[in-house]
Amino acid sequence: MFRHTKLLQFEAKPQRPDAAYARKLQELIGGAYGEMTVTMQYLFQGWNCRIEGKYKDLIMDTATEEIGHVEMLATMVARLLDGAPATETAEAADKDPVMAAVLGGMDPQQAIVAGGGALPNNSQGVPWNGGYIVASGNLLADFRANAAAEAQGRLQTARLYNMTDDPGVKEMLQFNLARDTVHQKQWLAAIEELEADGIEGPIAPSALFDVENSDHNNTVWHLSDGPDGAKGGWSADGDIEYLEAPKPLGGPATAPKPDPNLFGTYAPAQDASGTLKGKAKQAKNKLKDNGR
Amino acid sequence: MFRHTKLLQFEAKPQRPDAAYARKLQELIGGAYGEMTVTMQYLFQGWNCRIEGKYKDLIMDTATEEIGHVEMLATMVARLLDGAPATETAEAADKDPVMAAVLGGMDPQQAIVAGGGALPNNSQGVPWNGGYIVASGNLLADFRANAAAEAQGRLQTARLYNMTDDPGVKEMLQFNLARDTVHQKQWLAAIEELEADGIEGPIAPSALFDVENSDHNNTVWHLSDGPDGAKGGWSADGDIEYLEAPKPLGGPATAPKPDPNLFGTYAPAQDASGTLKGKAKQAKNKLKDNGR
Amino acid sequence: MFRHTKLLQFEAKPQRPDAAYARKLQELIGGAYGEMTVTMQYLFQGWNCRIEGKYKDLIMDTATEEIGHVEMLATMVARLLDGAPATETAEAADKDPVMAAVLGGMDPQQAIVAGGGALPNNSQGVPWNGGYIVASGNLLADFRANAAAEAQGRLQTARLYNMTDDPGVKEMLQFNLARDTVHQKQWLAAIEELEADGIEGPIAPSALFDVENSDHNNTVWHLSDGPDGAKGGWSADGDIEYLEAPKPLGGPATAPKPDPNLFGTYAPAQDASGTLKGKAKQAKNKLKDNGR
Amino acid sequence: MFRHTKLLQFEAKPQRPDAAYARKLQELIGGAYGEMTVTMQYLFQGWNCRIEGKYKDLIMDTATEEIGHVEMLATMVARLLDGAPATETAEAADKDPVMAAVLGGMDPQQAIVAGGGALPNNSQGVPWNGGYIVASGNLLADFRANAAAEAQGRLQTARLYNMTDDPGVKEMLQFNLARDTVHQKQWLAAIEELEADGIEGPIAPSALFDVENSDHNNTVWHLSDGPDGAKGGWSADGDIEYLEAPKPLGGPATAPKPDPNLFGTYAPAQDASGTLKGKAKQAKNKLKDNGR
Amino acid sequence: MFRHTKLLQFEAKPQRPDAAYARKLQELIGGAYGEMTVTMQYLFQGWNCRIEGKYKDLIMDTATEEIGHVEMLATMVARLLDGAPATETAEAADKDPVMAAVLGGMDPQQAIVAGGGALPNNSQGVPWNGGYIVASGNLLADFRANAAAEAQGRLQTARLYNMTDDPGVKEMLQFNLARDTVHQKQWLAAIEELEADGIEGPIAPSALFDVENSDHNNTVWHLSDGPDGAKGGWSADGDIEYLEAPKPLGGPATAPKPDPNLFGTYAPAQDASGTLKGKAKQAKNKLKDNGR
Amino acid sequence: MFRHTKLLQFEAKPQRPDAAYARKLQELIGGAYGEMTVTMQYLFQGWNCRIEGKYKDLIMDTATEEIGHVEMLATMVARLLDGAPATETAEAADKDPVMAAVLGGMDPQQAIVAGGGALPNNSQGVPWNGGYIVASGNLLADFRANAAAEAQGRLQTARLYNMTDDPGVKEMLQFNLARDTVHQKQWLAAIEELEADGIEGPIAPSALFDVENSDHNNTVWHLSDGPDGAKGGWSADGDIEYLEAPKPLGGPATAPKPDPNLFGTYAPAQDASGTLKGKAKQAKNKLKDNGR
Repeated sequence: MFRHTKLLQFEAKPQRPDAAYARKLQELIGGAYGEMTVTMQYLFQGWNCRIEGKYKDLIMDTATEEIGHVEMLATMVARLLDGAPATETAEAADKDPVMAAVLGGMDPQQAIVAGGGALPNNSQGVPWNGGYIVASGNLLADFRANAAAEAQGRLQTARLYNMTDDPGVKEMLQFNLARDTVHQKQWLAAIEELEADGIEGPIAPSALFDVENSDHNNTVWHLSDGPDGAKGGWSADGDIEYLEAPKPLGGPATAPKPDPNLFGTYAPAQDASGTLKGKAKQAKNKLKDNGR
Repeated sequence: MFRHTKLLQFEAKPQRPDAAYARKLQELIGGAYGEMTVTMQYLFQGWNCRIEGKYKDLIMDTATEEIGHVEMLATMVARLLDGAPATETAEAADKDPVMAAVLGGMDPQQAIVAGGGALPNNSQGVPWNGGYIVASGNLLADFRANAAAEAQGRLQTARLYNMTDDPGVKEMLQFNLARDTVHQKQWLAAIEELEADGIEGPIAPSALFDVENSDHNNTVWHLSDGPDGAKGGWSADGDIEYLEAPKPLGGPATAPKPDPNLFGTYAPAQDASGTLKGKAKQAKNKLKDNGR
Repeated sequence: MFRHTKLLQFEAKPQRPDAAYARKLQELIGGAYGEMTVTMQYLFQGWNCRIEGKYKDLIMDTATEEIGHVEMLATMVARLLDGAPATETAEAADKDPVMAAVLGGMDPQQAIVAGGGALPNNSQGVPWNGGYIVASGNLLADFRANAAAEAQGRLQTARLYNMTDDPGVKEMLQFNLARDTVHQKQWLAAIEELEADGIEGPIAPSALFDVENSDHNNTVWHLSDGPDGAKGGWSADGDIEYLEAPKPLGGPATAPKPDPNLFGTYAPAQDASGTLKGKAKQAKNKLKDNGR
Repeated sequence: MFRHTKLLQFEAKPQRPDAAYARKLQELIGGAYGEMTVTMQYLFQGWNCRIEGKYKDLIMDTATEEIGHVEMLATMVARLLDGAPATETAEAADKDPVMAAVLGGMDPQQAIVAGGGALPNNSQGVPWNGGYIVASGNLLADFRANAAAEAQGRLQTARLYNMTDDPGVKEMLQFNLARDTVHQKQWLAAIEELEADGIEGPIAPSALFDVENSDHNNTVWHLSDGPDGAKGGWSADGDIEYLEAPKPLGGPATAPKPDPNLFGTYAPAQDASGTLKGKAKQAKNKLKDNGR
Repeated sequence: MFRHTKLLQFEAKPQRPDAAYARKLQELIGGAYGEMTVTMQYLFQGWNCRIEGKYKDLIMDTATEEIGHVEMLATMVARLLDGAPATETAEAADKDPVMAAVLGGMDPQQAIVAGGGALPNNSQGVPWNGGYIVASGNLLADFRANAAAEAQGRLQTARLYNMTDDPGVKEMLQFNLARDTVHQKQWLAAIEELEADGIEGPIAPSALFDVENSDHNNTVWHLSDGPDGAKGGWSADGDIEYLEAPKPLGGPATAPKPDPNLFGTYAPAQDASGTLKGKAKQAKNKLKDNGR
Repeated sequence: MFRHTKLLQFEAKPQRPDAAYARKLQELIGGAYGEMTVTMQYLFQGWNCRIEGKYKDLIMDTATEEIGHVEMLATMVARLLDGAPATETAEAADKDPVMAAVLGGMDPQQAIVAGGGALPNNSQGVPWNGGYIVASGNLLADFRANAAAEAQGRLQTARLYNMTDDPGVKEMLQFNLARDTVHQKQWLAAIEELEADGIEGPIAPSALFDVENSDHNNTVWHLSDGPDGAKGGWSADGDIEYLEAPKPLGGPATAPKPDPNLFGTYAPAQDASGTLKGKAKQAKNKLKDNGR
């Protein structure tokens, strides 16, 4: 069960309106690596965690924090739109090219749909969706996804930091950058801890190593003509081997004869060259259907 | 530019039809962590790679391999459907409960839409979409996402390995498990190499550390009542500190007065208790509009 | 900012496994009217509320409760899957038609993707998305959407109540039904309060009545041949009038001549019958391009 | 079965081109509360209506009208684009900042995909989808959704009314505003009629009141620190009670032990503090798989 | 403007309930090639048609018919569910494997969301979306898409025809097959007419032939090792030439140096082998940010 | 299996940066008719092709080429963004209206998410999805879809050709136009070949002609008041007949009585006029539930 205080985790006060930037910030709210993603990813991971204790508690602490990050960003968006152009018309735009550009660059749904507020969408207006998150029950696999999400999140925040001069916005983003730093650290540390505790190893899942095809679990197949892949440290230490001229191991990628009830195109009598011999015929049903 | 041979990278021959399993395999084709995802993720990362040489070549080698994995799985699906029930009717189902169950559990689009073939969808029929992938231009952030994707991919493959007895299917999955193992290894090794080469550090992006809020880049906020998060190794080594009773740092999450042209609900005269004083009023435009 | 306790708002303990039902419950988690929807709808409405006090506080109280409902349902799903078939194979299914049916009816992603847990999806596997919610800043419009969402939510819960015999599941749903009842009541009461407070009227938004076309704001256009629409109480009280044989008020729905640079099909010389006169011509660019 | 006349329900003639506005109007065509939504929502409700007569006829009358609204808006969009910039290049934009802004603010797909016409998308380019509509078979639940949709629709139309000076556009929107007014009225009246007819009551669905948990169907749980929720009229009349300091009623949100075949992270021997005792162990299968 | 009669274009009466089939029929309602697609595709094409007369009238005649096809299918789905299992529980399923299979194979949303009715979704539950349709303003391009859509539509209908024994369902599908036949014929005839009228030619759009690269508009690049492509009639008639061993025409697919403000991974000093020389450096900004 | 060379199929070098155009080009990458679509459509068609030889080889040759087209476009996008504004702030925009317009018109995700690179999205930011493609196993139906896709693709490329003055971009598009020309030719030729080979006829699928309703497979139903449809050549040649005043053939579109467990609104006792007689009653369950 959750509780809420009306105070923000960190202040979110821009110095002046900036509708174009309010659109860009939507990426951090509803983008694939925005705060809705980490909120929902950590919540579902916490609920799906099968081992009580430190790992689950760390997940739930962080999940709960992230809800508050969506709150900070939504508040910031509403404030950036306060006083910004929203309902100015073509006539007004004709007279003021900069305002015209702002109108063109803003998210029209922030005005039309949200009345000057934030949306659960990314910076291009695509609604957030549950396909962005993962909660597999395997902590190694999931913590890797978490470290990756925080890396992309910090990267996007850093890019957005360079797109504004507003001291109030920059101050909030300095906090966000810091949180993304510590969250990267904690998931990386938790990955190490999983191994130290002996419950996961370096490869996820820690299972089926005895059945996987051991001829093929340490080779890079050289399938692009870039000559440098083999020069990386990864192939120097003997752990990974470069197959310089790999050959396919399987047979032809043929598909079976179609089910006649499903009317796939088929011709039983064709020679090897692909030329159909005489009057080719489709699967039997079709002929019967046609009665001709 | 790409070239294709008709031979499969590895054989994909099931011993017998299994329509229910053909549906489940769709997860590895068009799921969020399926082969279409790694194909497209690595292709876009290769094309977006800003540093020529070993990293880019490794990305393009792997990307090119993954297209062939979609091919193996699509071929396997078509063959698993060969001879399986597809157009059996309710009457037939009434007489054979197992066949009824197979019909119920199969992906109806594999028959209706693909005529007995694979679809670019996951095991629940949701089409693959570009929101699953990332290619940020920052190799540390992206390689983390790659290691995470291969971990989820191997995990799902391992689960599917336990859902079949078919020796032909199992043999192909043993190859896939092996490839997911080496791909995890290679991305983890490439992450280490980025640091060894001095072009990325442990935190992505390796930038803006001097401006991020250093009071808040090493604390876990204890916001859930689980007592064990603080007992993890991560807080023992001094790198991460647990804030046991964190307080909000910001002010109230208030939204500004609405733009009268956007008709948000607003009442200028309300007392602190939220009781509206006298006859409350909406923003000025509305009154003018009403002419009252 | 939010806080979390590990205790559930209400107990979520099924008596026995039921994988088919665990799939159905996904509708209440990630469906258009599931708990993720009301969670996010109320959170964004609270953050977008432009009037401090009772309305905003009611919204945030309810929003915070709903996060806990997602938690209850996710927990219930994991427990319903505990001991249910998940990785049984075709061979096993052949021997046990009921188990075959369970495997066919379950959500394969709950096993393959979530390892026996809940997903942010509906009962057909479609991921939850932000397009389900609205937070317009106009409280009348939004509270109507809220009352509608709780009505659909209680309806779906009631249907699901009839699909199980499990006393533990039924007990939780009895709580959920009750919450959906009170939430309907509260949003309906809040709608009345908005009018009592004089800040919204019966029609949303309470604006532009002086400009809307008053010839057409009280007529139902009789465009289907059902004769009974006019017999409803709504047309008896004089407020709504039935137009028995309405005529179009506008001119033809013609589209303008295409921009020649965009290559829409166009023929300048055609007579009224649609027969093209002589050699018809496309817009000028095309001719130039063809060099004819 | 349907029939069509080429005359528009109401005229749709702008005075001059306005590509930026043509993009904004897409919200009323393919947005979540646009005309495609009410068209499809009412059609499916009519087809799913289980009670012949006045209700169904009202639904089908309105559904049929709404198809014509999509037609009006699509026509308006094509005309607003007639003569607007579409294929101007960067060179031209450099010389004319206002035109540059128009090009930046327009929907590029209206030119590239539709050749100067409307799309089945919202103002941010997101395609309309069936997840926006509901047709539950329960008329109270559905009429609430209808009243809500018309409220959001009129609100968005009102906002768009303030974003243009074009007298032709304004005249059409004055008609649309009026239709949204009467449609709100009719659904609200139909809700009252359902109760007057004794077929639905105030809470949807009118069922299962005897089984729902009556301890919890009249309380607001005070879970946010806003103090004013309890001061609303809703808690004054005794119908809704405020729980000032609610406590969780359920036990811990623990997830069960994972299925070993699904490789969730698990360690059987851990103490209460979450510290793993000795060498922790994953579920049995894994160990067997590793053979170590 | 549209009008509606309550009579169906063709009868839709199944002889008995069949919930599993009701799910499959959803493909014809809300699938990519279902009736919602042709309805919306033809409506938008009609509204976007820039040439009055026979073409536009044919489009609007057909568009209007298709709305009635959605109606027939939605009615059929509701009737197929009448008397079918919907709320049977696990206990009941344990006793009746066929009913268990029906429950497993049915669309759970038809019961939970629609109360026994149709949904705007495909047979896997994916909501219909506007991305399925096209209305480009170019009639040749669009009529080709129409002929393709009717071909896929008839193919899917034919497959579904083989999945039922119900005489009432088969009778309706016999009508649908016929309509798909004539619609294929009409679009193919209209394509020929466009050429006869001299307003479109064989290639769409009929423009820019003088600028397209004429060295490359008649060659098939042989990029797969299948030897038979060159043996088709297409290369026999001289119109299309097979390039047996095509070589890339462009230079390397390198991406430019990253914008330092966007933190792409970059190392200015690397040798041709991809080995970084000495201590590699990221773009200048990063170094400044780090202050190191 | 696939192989890759780093050389582009054709050069992709713009003369100068153009961020607004880089956004527009996204339509050709990830739009419904972009290169990702033809890549995936042809790949899945090839893998699903049930007839070895010339058709399959042609499909795979073309599929393999198309992957390289995505590569060319992604490279072009990255180069168009090289040197374009990306992180300029509001302050800078205030001083330079043209730059402000560029910032407003660019795709913000190309900077924030991709760091100056291409995305798997269309020009409005909507991610590419698998619902765009078809691979039915029936070659006639699929080749029609291919010819349609290449027509839309060439049309969009032609429109984009008119939106740039950059000689480098124009040169690449001249190549793309040419490829779209030959691909249209080849699919049209392959359609003719299918008929010449006697494996498909003019209508897809070539089956069930003996069962389809022959009264209705050659009539256009005149359902819109446009008088000119009947004047097309299609009705002159006797193959297609115009039904000038068609009547519905079916009965009323009534839905059955609802399942009482699903709580659809129902009133058993209503007279023909739709007026409910006396106190109407809902289905029996509800009354029992209410205890009345």
